Amino acid sequence: MRKILILGAGRSASSLISYLIEHASEQDWQVTVADRDEAQARRMVHNGGNAALGVALDATQAAERAALIESHDLVISMLPAFMHMDVLKDCLRLRKHVITPSYVPDALWAMDREFKDAGLIVLNEMGLDPGIDHMSAMRILDAIRAKGGVMEAFESYCGGLVAPESDTNPWGYKFSWNPRNVILAGQGGSAKYIREGITKYIPYHKLFQQTVRIAVEGLGEYDGYANRDSLKYREAYGMVDIPTLVRGTLRKAGYCAAWDAFVQLGCTDDGFPMELRADATWSDYLNAFLPGSTGKDLRGALAEYLGIDLAGEVMQKLDWLGLFGNEAIGVSGLSPAATLQSLLERKWKLEADDKDLVVMWHRFQYMLGGRRHVIKASLGVIGHDQTHTAMARTVGLPIAMASKLVLNGEVADRGVLLPLKPAIYDPVLNELETLGIAFHEQESVE
Amino acid sequence: MRKILILGAGRSASSLISYLIEHASEQDWQVTVADRDEAQARRMVHNGGNAALGVALDATQAAERAALIESHDLVISMLPAFMHMDVLKDCLRLRKHVITPSYVPDALWAMDREFKDAGLIVLNEMGLDPGIDHMSAMRILDAIRAKGGVMEAFESYCGGLVAPESDTNPWGYKFSWNPRNVILAGQGGSAKYIREGITKYIPYHKLFQQTVRIAVEGLGEYDGYANRDSLKYREAYGMVDIPTLVRGTLRKAGYCAAWDAFVQLGCTDDGFPMELRADATWSDYLNAFLPGSTGKDLRGALAEYLGIDLAGEVMQKLDWLGLFGNEAIGVSGLSPAATLQSLLERKWKLEADDKDLVVMWHRFQYMLGGRRHVIKASLGVIGHDQTHTAMARTVGLPIAMASKLVLNGEVADRGVLLPLKPAIYDPVLNELETLGIAFHEQESVE
Repeated sequence: MRKILILGAGRSASSLISYLIEHASEQDWQVTVADRDEAQARRMVHNGGNAALGVALDATQAAERAALIESHDLVISMLPAFMHMDVLKDCLRLRKHVITPSYVPDALWAMDREFKDAGLIVLNEMGLDPGIDHMSAMRILDAIRAKGGVMEAFESYCGGLVAPESDTNPWGYKFSWNPRNVILAGQGGSAKYIREGITKYIPYHKLFQQTVRIAVEGLGEYDGYANRDSLKYREAYGMVDIPTLVRGTLRKAGYCAAWDAFVQLGCTDDGFPMELRADATWSDYLNAFLPGSTGKDLRGALAEYLGIDLAGEVMQKLDWLGLFGNEAIGVSGLSPAATLQSLLERKWKLEADDKDLVVMWHRFQYMLGGRRHVIKASLGVIGHDQTHTAMARTVGLPIAMASKLVLNGEVADRGVLLPLKPAIYDPVLNELETLGIAFHEQESVE
Repeated sequence: MRKILILGAGRSASSLISYLIEHASEQDWQVTVADRDEAQARRMVHNGGNAALGVALDATQAAERAALIESHDLVISMLPAFMHMDVLKDCLRLRKHVITPSYVPDALWAMDREFKDAGLIVLNEMGLDPGIDHMSAMRILDAIRAKGGVMEAFESYCGGLVAPESDTNPWGYKFSWNPRNVILAGQGGSAKYIREGITKYIPYHKLFQQTVRIAVEGLGEYDGYANRDSLKYREAYGMVDIPTLVRGTLRKAGYCAAWDAFVQLGCTDDGFPMELRADATWSDYLNAFLPGSTGKDLRGALAEYLGIDLAGEVMQKLDWLGLFGNEAIGVSGLSPAATLQSLLERKWKLEADDKDLVVMWHRFQYMLGGRRHVIKASLGVIGHDQTHTAMARTVGLPIAMASKLVLNGEVADRGVLLPLKPAIYDPVLNELETLGIAFHEQESVE
């Protein structure tokens, strides 16, 4: 009997927990799901029989947390990122392997030696993005290098979106994850990428203008905007000298031009509470960002200020949100970003019958035998339902599969790990394929 | 004998110290200037005879600082803002009046009661901006209200610039104070102002586009851009319901459109170190902010990206800085803003024979007797030399004059004060006028 502890039973843990329960008997697992909300933890294991237990845990309580960790063999932390370090320190002290979908905090790299010496695995970035992006990219990069190919360009984009059959609004977007992160996306500094050997920077106010149009096989057209951290994995991917490198986020084609209207206006600023009258309308909200007196023609004033077509797609998208209407805002004292979020949460809600969509797209350009080769690899995953969303499946299933590898002794490395090597990416990507989470690859030669 | 202690003998303290020395005999003052750099402190009092002493003090050393404060009657803190609270706490404990040119830190308002109970004066914002702006505005506002006028609009702008006779570059700008603050001006959040009853917000990337053109009597044309804190003094000025209120910063006409090029490119981001080759040129610097391949025509690519005229004034200003040339940058590993600063510090240096200029401009619009009145009040001060700059005189002289008022018992109020009342603004503004620091007023009636 191997005992697995899952800390945090949020929505993104559903497919992870289901997988672990389904394989509990075959793998001789006992699964414990711990959450601050005991009812939620119990709901998540309701079909687990004797193999699974839902328990209450306030993960900020050190003694209770440690006691629970001590009685298990493997810890999976689905907690918010800021709580990870406490869990990781417990795991080191109590000698437990641990897997997370989160980015490696700087403080964790400093503990690599200690984890290695203790013979422990700390496998991070094991979800979708980061996670499946690493694995799918590294499998192709390793294959290219094994053939002797020399990389010229790597471009990689991912987005959590809405399935085509549930795409019922002009933005082509509904919230399948944290709305706040969508509103604030790209803030906090310039995005970086490399083009033809030159490191380039994009300030936030140009981010949604400098997009690329990407056609994804079978799924249509998307806008890609650059992530802040495009260069972060240069070394880890073995691409220190690659001339062109960019990582980014996908939105339905046309979304970015419309979102840019909010950025240009200043609507995404989260730094101060707005002063709006108690009975303010969405027209008043827009008006607060327009210079001078807008008079009665708010649409005209806004189109002129932003330099956009009064009858164009951007205006249509803004119009659809009701921003030019007299509906009361209904919240007050919030930042521009949080005020906008309150509107979008209503308008971009994923309804009970809606399905979400995860899209990932890579492009590899390399020279081999004097010829230029291009591989495009794309992944499209549609959610099963509101529980087993594409997001929950693509985040949770890789973690579940990695748990199996770790507990069965198939991961030889120790210390702070990312899923960059065949020992992890091959079995996980292969098993994901059996569940329909499969990349479509296309290679062309110039 | 009344003993005055000046903490911090930086350049902006020169005219303050000279005034105190000049009036020492008449006022029975003994002046001590304390600075981390003892030689600098001594230089600043070299013509003070027995009336003035320069001493070494590391103001972060609590015991030494307290001992020096204890042996004086009045403390003038010219230290950087972050060091003020320690000094203010000493002054409360040791029962000393204190004057500063700095903004009131939030933590100080909380100590107001304690200072009042101790019978102490903490007079803040007593320099130029904040300082002369408060005094000159309040004198006119009080006069308007005394006549029964009802304020409709208050606009107030100030700038530290270069004197017309020393204005030898197309930007019309040289550094007369902290270069870093000029480069980062406007960052950290949206600017706020009120126009016709509506609170308006300007995000940083629109700040240097939403400027007003202001003609200052006898001094020419200026651009004004809004400060972040326009609404900060609404209550203190007694203007809670004023329909239009904006405060801002002045630059020579044409400066803002050119500075906006840097903002649009992302050159003023101070958040990350740039990756530039060791032999990188200023052309490489610009290229890092342009999307795609710029090829050989950097000027054309930049003009097209920014939507500016290739032969226009903005391009001429950028060209004059040498940004399209092959001169090596000479610094590395700095942020875009700090890299740019290294260039501007050379190009916008105030030379030995140059004189600086301080410009302040207010506009008051009010209704009286059924008619609309407008008062424009402007101040232009040209520096005497590199020591007694316009900046040093307008920052230091009001503090010196306020010291006289405080020590002679002419300030009745106690606690945390700003120079908003006639007991301070009348004598200080009147004495400034005798030294040629005088506002020009013009009233018109519609």
